[in-house]
Amino acid sequence: MTPRRLRHCTECGTAVDYRVPADDNRERAVCPACGHVQYQNPLNVVGTLPLAEDGRVLLCRRAIEPRRGLWTLPAGFMELGETVEAGALRETSEEAGARVELLGLMAMIDVLHVGQVHFFYRARLLDLDFAPGEESLEVRLFHWDELPWDELAFRTVRLTLEHQRAGTPGVLTAALS
Amino acid sequence: MTPRRLRHCTECGTAVDYRVPADDNRERAVCPACGHVQYQNPLNVVGTLPLAEDGRVLLCRRAIEPRRGLWTLPAGFMELGETVEAGALRETSEEAGARVELLGLMAMIDVLHVGQVHFFYRARLLDLDFAPGEESLEVRLFHWDELPWDELAFRTVRLTLEHQRAGTPGVLTAALS
Ligand SMILES: [Zn+2]
Ligand SMILES: [Zn+2]
Repeated sequence: MTPRRLRHCTECGTAVDYRVPADDNRERAVCPACGHVQYQNPLNVVGTLPLAEDGRVLLCRRAIEPRRGLWTLPAGFMELGETVEAGALRETSEEAGARVELLGLMAMIDVLHVGQVHFFYRARLLDLDFAPGEESLEVRLFHWDELPWDELAFRTVRLTLEHQRAGTPGVLTAALS
Repeated sequence: MTPRRLRHCTECGTAVDYRVPADDNRERAVCPACGHVQYQNPLNVVGTLPLAEDGRVLLCRRAIEPRRGLWTLPAGFMELGETVEAGALRETSEEAGARVELLGLMAMIDVLHVGQVHFFYRARLLDLDFAPGEESLEVRLFHWDELPWDELAFRTVRLTLEHQRAGTPGVLTAALS
């Protein structure tokens, strides 16, 4: 699912054409009435890999589609007016009710087919008073030898967990087609 | 200039309202006719800091607004279907006609007032056959003691150049309000 094609001009409501504008080199949604060009660009999904003092990792079981019932790291779309780091903290709070300290970016993964870039920060849980938010059925800590590898919601979550388990230094960068 | 508010529904063309949808916690453009919610999120600007073998840095003098006539690093909006790295290479080619090898991410800067995140990669020029693209008036190499610090186009370009000059290891992260 690439981002949906736009059908109407956001400025005047006229049905748009997809064509290459004169000063451009790729197709855009162009309004035949007012000339407005509406761009579509990749979006950032930001989240954390929260770790307890004993090394366990926090995962959320999704209450919403897609992938309802599967396990994920807390993450979601970055919002206007916040930094990448602030977005990661907000999503951790909203989805897991968890307070964390960010320890640094650990993964930046291009997800080409959906037009997204996923950012995960390694994070330290400040306490164990977490609780599922509206988008989670359940939030719990897993020992690394009991992680639900077969019930993970997203490939970027798997890659980020594998990067942590491997202990490889540096930021994981990867691209998923 | 925060990203412009949307006026019409991209699905059906009806004038939208800005309000908080039932399952949400912030204002969105909501269509009163078809119910479509149009999200607006931060966009990524991706570019490079290209270095010649002798240590000189490549800058482009902008041919377009904003900041026409001022100097910048090659950078622009990331496009659908490309990775962050591919976007940085493309912009370096389009704006400076330059071929580079990426040496790693060196700066990731939130620019809150425009809803952007700027990514710069340190890069090695593969040859000196660069030439201005349509968005540049001029492309040239600068020794570090002759950099046009008073004629830089953007604060993120300044921060990235300062980070390189300082020689500080690691990725610069910063937020501009
Ligand atoms: Zn229009
Ligand atoms: Zn509508």
